[in-house]
Formats: sequence, C-alpha cells, structure tokens
Amino acid sequence: MLKITKPKLLLNEKICKANIAAMARKAQKHHLQFRPHFKTHQAAEIAEWFRAEGVEKITVSSVDMARYFADNGWNDITIAFPFNQLEIDDINYLAAKIKLNLLLIHEESIRFLAENLQHEVGIFIKIDCGYHRTGIPAENHEEINELCSELSMQTKMKFRGFLTHSGHSYGAASKKEILEIHSKSLTCMNALKLEFSHLKPIISIGDTPCCSLADDFNGVDEIRPGNFVFYDVTQLKLSACKPKQIAVGLACPVVAVHEDRVVIYGGGVHLSKEFLTDESGVRNFGLVAKLKHSGWKAPIKDAQVISLSQEHGIVKLPPHELNNLHLGDLLVILPIHSCMTANLMGEYLLLDGTKVKHLSNI
Amino acid sequence: MLKITKPKLLLNEKICKANIAAMARKAQKHHLQFRPHFKTHQAAEIAEWFRAEGVEKITVSSVDMARYFADNGWNDITIAFPFNQLEIDDINYLAAKIKLNLLLIHEESIRFLAENLQHEVGIFIKIDCGYHRTGIPAENHEEINELCSELSMQTKMKFRGFLTHSGHSYGAASKKEILEIHSKSLTCMNALKLEFSHLKPIISIGDTPCCSLADDFNGVDEIRPGNFVFYDVTQLKLSACKPKQIAVGLACPVVAVHEDRVVIYGGGVHLSKEFLTDESGVRNFGLVAKLKHSGWKAPIKDAQVISLSQEHGIVKLPPHELNNLHLGDLLVILPIHSCMTANLMGEYLLLDGTKVKHLSNI
Repeated sequence: MLKITKPKLLLNEKICKANIAAMARKAQKHHLQFRPHFKTHQAAEIAEWFRAEGVEKITVSSVDMARYFADNGWNDITIAFPFNQLEIDDINYLAAKIKLNLLLIHEESIRFLAENLQHEVGIFIKIDCGYHRTGIPAENHEEINELCSELSMQTKMKFRGFLTHSGHSYGAASKKEILEIHSKSLTCMNALKLEFSHLKPIISIGDTPCCSLADDFNGVDEIRPGNFVFYDVTQLKLSACKPKQIAVGLACPVVAVHEDRVVIYGGGVHLSKEFLTDESGVRNFGLVAKLKHSGWKAPIKDAQVISLSQEHGIVKLPPHELNNLHLGDLLVILPIHSCMTANLMGEYLLLDGTKVKHLSNI
Repeated sequence: MLKITKPKLLLNEKICKANIAAMARKAQKHHLQFRPHFKTHQAAEIAEWFRAEGVEKITVSSVDMARYFADNGWNDITIAFPFNQLEIDDINYLAAKIKLNLLLIHEESIRFLAENLQHEVGIFIKIDCGYHRTGIPAENHEEINELCSELSMQTKMKFRGFLTHSGHSYGAASKKEILEIHSKSLTCMNALKLEFSHLKPIISIGDTPCCSLADDFNGVDEIRPGNFVFYDVTQLKLSACKPKQIAVGLACPVVAVHEDRVVIYGGGVHLSKEFLTDESGVRNFGLVAKLKHSGWKAPIKDAQVISLSQEHGIVKLPPHELNNLHLGDLLVILPIHSCMTANLMGEYLLLDGTKVKHLSNI
C-alpha cells in the first residue's frame, strides 16, 4: 500500500491510458487529426502515453506550456489562447525551434506580428460558435474575410484554418443539449469551410463533452479535447464519462469525525474551489471513494464534499459509512475539475508509488 | 516600469507593512498576544516584516508550513489545523526543534500522541463557537472537561488553552452581523475561561473580519488573523478593509477586446475560482484597476471579472474604459481571496521588481 500522510493526487495509469486510447481510436474512426490539449495533465511523462498512441501534434494554452513541451521533444504545437503580444520574445524563440501555430482574433495582431515575427508560424483564426468567451462571431464572415485577406499578404504567417472551442457545453443540462451545441458548431464551421474553401482551412474543434459524446464530425478536420485524459465529476455529471473512467483522485487523511460530518485534510489549495450545485442548491466539491490496493472503489452513494476552506474539506456521508471511519483513514476525493486540481497539486502519484511531475512544480 | 509579459502577482510592500503595523498596534492596545496566521502570505521574507513589528509567535495551517517557517527561524508555532496522526514523524521532528502547539478535538488523538510523541508539545482544544466546520461545540463542557482531564495526566502534552475560528464571519451580510458573531464567540469562550479557570487557559480567536472590525476583546488572550496582511475583495465587501488596504493585485495582459468585454491572460490557475455574487446573481471574480508607476489606481467603478476559465479572464468594463483599452495593455485584478491567489501564483513581484517566493514554489 502507498505511504500517504497528506493530500496526494493519485493517478490510475491504466484508466488514463485507456482514456487516451479510446479518444485516439475515435479520432481515427472519424478520420480526424487528433491534436490533444495538454493543459489538463501538463506532464512530459503523461505526454509520452499519447505518443505511444501515435500522437505527434498537440495543443497547449500558454506560451510557457509550449516551451515546456517543446523542450520535451514535441515539435508541432498550437497555442490555443489569443496571441499575447507581450510574449513575442518567447514566441520567436519557439517559432525558431518548432512548428508553431498561433491563434488570432484581431487585425492589429497581424500588424504587430508582421513587424516583430522572426520565423514562420501557422495561424488559426479563433471563431466564436456561441460560447462568447472570445473569438470572432462565426456569422461575421466579413471580419473573418478581412483577416484572411490581411494574412494572405504576409510571408511569415501561414493561414492554417478556423479554430473554435464550444466551452458552453460545460453548462449543458443534458446529453441532448451537448449534442445540439456540437451540431451548431458544425453548422457554423462548415459554413466557413465552404465560404473560404479556396484557402483550404483546417476546421479544428475542441471540448471534451462534445468529443466524448458526439458521433457526427462532418466537415471537421481536427479535434483538440484535453480533459478526457483524466475526466472528472463535471464530465460525469454531463454523461461524458463513466465513474470508472475518472483517472485521478485526491487521497486525503481523515482528521476529525463529527456526528454528521467528517473533516479531511484536503482543501481549496488541493482540490480548487470548483463545485457543482444540485437541484436543492447544495454544493458538491467532490465525490468520495475508499482506497483499495489497486486504486479506489466506486464513489460512495450519497457522499460528497460539501465545503472547502484552505486546507479543510467537510465531507457528508451516510451514517453507516461515517460510523466506520476513523482518524487517520484515507478517503479519495474525485475532483470536480481535474485540470484545476492537477495544477494545484503539481505532482501525480501513480499507484505503484512513482511520482510524475506537473509543469506547475518544475 | 516593471517588465510584465504574463500574469504576475504584484505586492505593494508599503500597504502590506501598514496592514501588519495596524494589526500589531491593535493587539497591543487591547493587551492581546499577536500570533498572526502565516497561511495567507507563506513567505519567509514577508514573515520578517512581522518580526520587525515585534512578532515572535505565529500560526500556520499545515505541518509543511510549520517546517518551512521553523527552517526560517521561527520557534514558537501553533498548527491551527486538527492533529493529523499520519504526520506524526514530521511533528516529532518539529517538536524536537521548536515550541510547537497542536490542535486537538478527539480523545483518541491524546491516546495516539501518548504512544507516539517523543518531545513536549503544547495543546489547544479546538472549540466550535458556531462556524460548524470542526471543533467541540462550545457548550459541550462535559466533553471538553474529559479532554482536559485526559490531558492533565499526560507528561509530553501541555494544555495551553481553547482556540476557535469563527469563519462564519465571512458569510456575514453586514458589519453588525460580524460583530454579533464576534460577540457570541466572546461569550462562549469566556464561559470556558470561567469554567476551566483552574487550568489558566489561553483564549485564542482568529478571523480577519472580527479582528479588523471589533473593538471589544474582553477575555481574549491571543488573536490569530491572517488574511489582513493583504486583505482582498471579500474583506472589502465585509467592510473589514478599505480599497487602499488591498496589498496584492494580479497584473494581466489584455489579449482580446470585444464590443462588450475584454479578455485577459489571467484565469482560474492564477486567481482561483473564488467569487462573490451580487444581488442580481452576477458573479464577481475580481475587481479591476489600472497600473500606475507606484502600484495600481483605485478599482474602476462598475468593472469586474465576470468569468474565469483555466487561463482566460473575461472583464466587463464601462464603455468609456473599454474603448481606451488596447491589446498588450495590463490590467490589475484585485483578488476575491488573496490566500488562494498567492498560493496559486507561488511568487510575489514587489513594485521595485524584486521577487519574493511563496512556499508553494519552493
């Protein structure tokens, strides 16, 4: 058994590798380029599990992440975050070394890059299919056309295609709603594919709920899901995964047992303060499972983390489960949002005791 | 001007030192032992600013934090977190080296310590005055008496007193409500002080809202506030501080400017996902200020971060402010919860460019 004395993020390698293999197979089946997002795991060692499935092209969400993976042998990277002109020096460093794709929204960025770029980069235009976080609204063909024209006059910027992230799928209430969001993205992106067919645009879409649940990828060339590598309680609630597909869990010591609740060493600095809210307004900061030799058991029914402070977690459990818990026991908390938990923990503990470093701890 | 290309946590040393000095003066005025909580800043260098105000005793919320500050010359530390028996080795290491106080709730922990403790430690009994996170309910004198009796028979465990944290003050709707919570804590703790007067208990209370706003500390011996070192938007909303007392702000590059919003490089992995909700249900993930040479200006009226994803922040601003923003500008986001932001960032940038490390990055 693992020697655990404080919160540790357990990673079930077998589940994780199965998640990677399943998404790689799905991409292959639909003839899609698989360019997974590495922002969830942010670990060079886990990246190699992708390479074993034939992955050569990746997505990241920061210039720092691009540098890290470039330093670890990845040479085709899309930074799926709006171009930040303040980081031009690092971008030039990367563009000299690898095949780099940037994400643009504004014409002003093209002018800035024209003056400051030292090496060739690929350019995706960021499209907003309804998430309304950022990007050019998909229906605004005029503005998109202006950007494309501007790009066509550039020597160091090569237009690659249109990229969207339908992150509003995370707010969907049902599988049906997720598939409607996906279907709307396909419609928007295919309209662009048709309108700009002379430019042979790559159509790139991204979120884990849609990539997990959809079976229609008509017109799509590339998918960029990330979270599926671990999944989490949010994806479970969205029906994008099964409990057995959740690959990470935070092992937490029990430090107090009260009549109606248990206190664990495991708080917002470990799990993050992400939560889901049920119909009655009760917040869920994580599901609760028991350790077993080969990982953790299925989540305990009617048990959840109901509040978090910096280091404390408060866990509600059914009486028969609560009465069997003792000080010094370990509970495994399945995170609401695995990307945030992994970033906070900075390290994974495989079930054989091997440690795997996350970029945030390097 | 500072060279900033990506999210950086600015720390205004002058404001921070003034916050420390003000709380030290308040403790002195009320004849209170000042044992500040170091979980907010977690930085050896900032700890020295406390030492300059005469602080010698401190509070932390984890064994790791205790080791870090012990290694940095602090030799009187209370770990204000329920005793975790799995960390007994580290606790023995610390108890050999410094004057260490532990927090107990359960008799079982006394039995465990009796068998495993190698050096003397001080013991505080954790009391619940209404927060209901953990601790023995303040009215349960019988159970408290049992713990005290058990402790009186121990040689390596020295009873120090009763400790409470009225964290429900953070949920208060007004200054009046905070003072009512504080007043209730005083009543509960003074009843214990009277009942157990033969043991000469230290009465220790803790939260920043009460310590900032209250003027009655009757019966209290020690205060342990932590957040006041930086304050934040939560404390501002509670009237526990003024905008000019907020000592940290996250500098974030503007990466997209849309008609109704601006996108910044600064997300949940920088600020944390903590938020406040206004009357109409709109979430506030941070207030927004402009940089100036000596720090940042007052928060912009009617501007706030309305949503966060991993690296993106979405900022709403009044039209006249939005129209004056450009790609590559920097905005300073005043965090909702400075403890969480500091932990995520792992480093402070003083306004003269000096970097100060946080424990999470050591």
